[in-house]
Amino acid sequence: MLLDNVNGPQDLKAFTVPELEQLAGEIREFLIRNLSVTGGHLAPNLGVVELTLALHYLFNSPQDKFIFDVGHQSYVHKILTGRMDRFSTLRKYKGLCGFVKRAESEHDVWEAGHSSTSLSAAMGMALARDLKGETNKVVAVIGDGALTGGMALEALNHIGHEKKNLIVILNDNEMSIAPNVGALHSYLGKIRTDRHYQKAKEEVQSTLNRIPAIGGKLAKTIERFKDSLKYLLVSGILFEQFGFHYFGPVDGHDLNQLLEVLQQVESVQGPVLIHVVTVKGKGYLPAEADSHKWHGITPYKIESGQVLKAVGPPMYTEVFGDALIELAELDDRIIAVTPAMPGGSGLLKFAERFPGRMIDVGIAEQHAATMSAALALEGMKPVFAVYSTFLQRAYDQVVHDICRHQANVIFAIDRAGFVGPDGETHQGVYDIAFLRHIPNMVLMMPKDENELRNMLKTAVDYNEGPIAVRYPRINGLGVDIDPVMTPIPIGTWETVREGDSAVVLAIGPMLQTAEEAAELLRREGIKLRIVNARFIKPLDEAMLLRLAEEGLNIFVMEEGSEMGGLGSAVLEFYSLHSITGLKVKIIGVPDLFIEHGTIKEQRQETGLTAEKLAAEVIGALPKRKRATNQH
Amino acid sequence: MLLDNVNGPQDLKAFTVPELEQLAGEIREFLIRNLSVTGGHLAPNLGVVELTLALHYLFNSPQDKFIFDVGHQSYVHKILTGRMDRFSTLRKYKGLCGFVKRAESEHDVWEAGHSSTSLSAAMGMALARDLKGETNKVVAVIGDGALTGGMALEALNHIGHEKKNLIVILNDNEMSIAPNVGALHSYLGKIRTDRHYQKAKEEVQSTLNRIPAIGGKLAKTIERFKDSLKYLLVSGILFEQFGFHYFGPVDGHDLNQLLEVLQQVESVQGPVLIHVVTVKGKGYLPAEADSHKWHGITPYKIESGQVLKAVGPPMYTEVFGDALIELAELDDRIIAVTPAMPGGSGLLKFAERFPGRMIDVGIAEQHAATMSAALALEGMKPVFAVYSTFLQRAYDQVVHDICRHQANVIFAIDRAGFVGPDGETHQGVYDIAFLRHIPNMVLMMPKDENELRNMLKTAVDYNEGPIAVRYPRINGLGVDIDPVMTPIPIGTWETVREGDSAVVLAIGPMLQTAEEAAELLRREGIKLRIVNARFIKPLDEAMLLRLAEEGLNIFVMEEGSEMGGLGSAVLEFYSLHSITGLKVKIIGVPDLFIEHGTIKEQRQETGLTAEKLAAEVIGALPKRKRATNQH
Repeated sequence: MLLDNVNGPQDLKAFTVPELEQLAGEIREFLIRNLSVTGGHLAPNLGVVELTLALHYLFNSPQDKFIFDVGHQSYVHKILTGRMDRFSTLRKYKGLCGFVKRAESEHDVWEAGHSSTSLSAAMGMALARDLKGETNKVVAVIGDGALTGGMALEALNHIGHEKKNLIVILNDNEMSIAPNVGALHSYLGKIRTDRHYQKAKEEVQSTLNRIPAIGGKLAKTIERFKDSLKYLLVSGILFEQFGFHYFGPVDGHDLNQLLEVLQQVESVQGPVLIHVVTVKGKGYLPAEADSHKWHGITPYKIESGQVLKAVGPPMYTEVFGDALIELAELDDRIIAVTPAMPGGSGLLKFAERFPGRMIDVGIAEQHAATMSAALALEGMKPVFAVYSTFLQRAYDQVVHDICRHQANVIFAIDRAGFVGPDGETHQGVYDIAFLRHIPNMVLMMPKDENELRNMLKTAVDYNEGPIAVRYPRINGLGVDIDPVMTPIPIGTWETVREGDSAVVLAIGPMLQTAEEAAELLRREGIKLRIVNARFIKPLDEAMLLRLAEEGLNIFVMEEGSEMGGLGSAVLEFYSLHSITGLKVKIIGVPDLFIEHGTIKEQRQETGLTAEKLAAEVIGALPKRKRATNQH
Repeated sequence: MLLDNVNGPQDLKAFTVPELEQLAGEIREFLIRNLSVTGGHLAPNLGVVELTLALHYLFNSPQDKFIFDVGHQSYVHKILTGRMDRFSTLRKYKGLCGFVKRAESEHDVWEAGHSSTSLSAAMGMALARDLKGETNKVVAVIGDGALTGGMALEALNHIGHEKKNLIVILNDNEMSIAPNVGALHSYLGKIRTDRHYQKAKEEVQSTLNRIPAIGGKLAKTIERFKDSLKYLLVSGILFEQFGFHYFGPVDGHDLNQLLEVLQQVESVQGPVLIHVVTVKGKGYLPAEADSHKWHGITPYKIESGQVLKAVGPPMYTEVFGDALIELAELDDRIIAVTPAMPGGSGLLKFAERFPGRMIDVGIAEQHAATMSAALALEGMKPVFAVYSTFLQRAYDQVVHDICRHQANVIFAIDRAGFVGPDGETHQGVYDIAFLRHIPNMVLMMPKDENELRNMLKTAVDYNEGPIAVRYPRINGLGVDIDPVMTPIPIGTWETVREGDSAVVLAIGPMLQTAEEAAELLRREGIKLRIVNARFIKPLDEAMLLRLAEEGLNIFVMEEGSEMGGLGSAVLEFYSLHSITGLKVKIIGVPDLFIEHGTIKEQRQETGLTAEKLAAEVIGALPKRKRATNQH
């Protein structure tokens, strides 16, 4: 295998194009084989095999900077930069990261995970290069979906203005994760598919060259517009108007075309945009046929493409989607809003049932939030379905347009808490800390999937402003589902286990952890009370006051930042009421970014375990009592 | 005066165009006269007099929805909707808001304050209208600067895709607050100024109509491109490519032109963009001559245009700008980055001194943050100068691109705390709560302008990741300035007043408030210790432990959200260390949006006063001790 001889990009340089083509085949085989065991972002990587080869063949990483937008399409780059032997650990605890990771290699210069950052990064690197008087290339690879993210457009605008030398490769595979939305998408489609346009482009260019020979007034008029005309006709006008030199479209699976255009642009001054058309999943038929499903995939059988699915109760995501349909049947004010995640957010069935009431805005969380505010002000009940980590993109809009307007926007915050193999860039551990301090916000987390349904009903019935329900990226517990969804009184907690030795206020999956801890403690004769602190804001103040009177030690357990979270809310409450002398201890996510692994491993690393809680409970008891209890 | 007869938009309908023109003059006079006393956003409002008149004349507010981006250009709208008699209270406590305010009038349908939200709002309102089966118009008025904000571009993209009926009025005055940045700006400039282009446009259109008469191959080729050519030539191609019908440019001070185009677009199906060219400050020569200075203005003399300035020590903003120049003289890694606020952030002198090292990215906070991360990763020392309230726009980028990369980005967070007359949309009271929980973040606030300088030096010397210094929108204290800036050890507080009755941990201007409280208490025989808690993160843990040993009552005073702020950090610290029994009380901004007024009024409303602190200190003392101390 040629691939065995590639330990770094330098090893590519001596290859011929046919050898590179052979290498492309070997890389595809390697990816398909390895990911069938580990899972991972198969389709995006199969789409950029030739492109990544061409970049490493012609340019010189790490002097030349390759910036991969999002970074889930960096597997080929990882293979070519000496990390092939680590692919069995992909996305596993302490293993190879599924995204670009600076600590892994000097060739990884920019970490992402969230989309649309690559152009800003490229601009920063080009500016720094020029300020330092260096001459390296800066290349950003961005998908057509990521290009519609607001910050990418901000960067396009700024780059076009500054005219720095940098290369943007638009990896146009006609879809981000879901099929793309937006005018920009239609525009790309037009460039891509209009053969008539392509052919005509050539014809007209040659015609233009002959125009000076034609006499008369018409010729003069045309001549005056020769530049504009040409400008239009050599295509990419939108990008040209943004100040880029546009090249393409190029077949992203044709190495000769790719190398030719990359060589062409090397000498161009100013920003360049190369429009590369690729096929997501290229070279593996199941993935080509359904690149949406194969974007990020669990282990599968190579021959059949059959995905090996874990069995279990429905995911919270799915329960949400089903419940929303039930609610929307009865209330036509309900509108679902998603920023390019209809599938990930469990809204595909909803979209089928209510096509006019599911608004996919593309990768545009800010716009989604503010548009939701306006929908609410006009009497609708928008349900903004968004991952916790992506809601970070709309913080200002949540403060400013939703909460300040006291707009009746419902937030369905999916993937709250640890997310497993996507790791640090996708952890949903900050939403409590960044939402709790915003006036008018109500924030809930259910103990199980039945309560999720009731919380959605609570949200729909609530008419005093924004209300959010956050739920984890895991299966439900398989509990019985109430025949009718019933709203929960705002700001009420419930005691789910009685006990008089200590009390834990827990939310979401931490309730199960608390139950396990209670069982461990029971063996020691310690009775742990467990409270489902399902309203993070507002708190159940009456219960907090009762707990203070009882004087039990209080533990707050949450799969979220231990700074600014539910635990802090409890501390603030007692401080406000001048209640001193209570032991309140927070067990949450420490002040670190938590890397990839399983959710279980992430909980173990951060001490969000039953053992830890049990040990804390015992440690906080008076020594005497501990001894007593043990007998 | 005609204006006296206008109590609502209905009163306009019977006017003739000459009467409207007269009205425009009266409105200008009214604005110039009133704002000379109250101050306010003069130039933007003088620019939209005719536009606002035309909208209210032709359309029917509040059924038709007028959405003003940012909303500081809504004064004319306020005058025409029955609020003329309240202008003497403009931007004053309990007075007329300087932005759109739903509580003020049914004609105010969308509140903003931050830029670039109007298109998303318009999209939401158009969607809601169609879902409800209504037929009202939705009109967004957006400036050319605001159009480069990421979320506006997200919305453009989505609107172009959905093809809803809505009208976008691009109020192109060639500047947002500062001269605009970006490719989009150059593009607008081209449309606006190229007379050759305008004239040719007409010529070619007529030529095109004659083309079928021409024989030969050339004609055929041209014919094939007739549509494209026309498309290019009728201008606004960028917007057309985004899916809008483009009309313009129109002279925004010519009522006939405005009314004509608005009538034209009434029947157009799908989204429309009307490009209106206006002059900021129109009709008042000083404002026309320097619309930047006259964007938002303090009281002035009408005849001379002389601005009545309060005297006092330099603002923190200015001290920052000067210090940064000094630091940059010695360290060429220092780069200033601003999102369209070079003046407001005190960077004009810096830009003059180091033109290549001041990057104004336009209204693009997200891009600014991420680009800063990349600059830092490449060895630069970017200083991201941004208002606290606008930094909200970049929360995800701060988490994801700056803190997770542990990039050496320096944040200069201006207008932290209350901001006075701009009110609730501009209060800088959340930055502590949204920054503190992010790993790797260091967060400081100086007690005076000399310490601000030393903190900037601290930041420049710090090489372990992001570091932020926040400072208020007020004058410095006039303290002596150290001849040399000296770094402050990270995580160290200082006791600025000794005392043994209680201790207050205060930051920024709250230190002066604490001093006043200490004086009040001294008369009662109570000695208040004051600590300058200048590092909000990391805390001075050694001092906190010492304070716990002493067992003094602790007060934390901060002009920031009382949820998730410095006070919460102190509570979390003691909880983590299982230190119980201490009285810790937070005096901060309560869980409400605080409206416009003076900073002093805002502090009084929220209890951030010396009297309140003194009362709290006394109330927390044991009764016995209180009595003892009083003798």
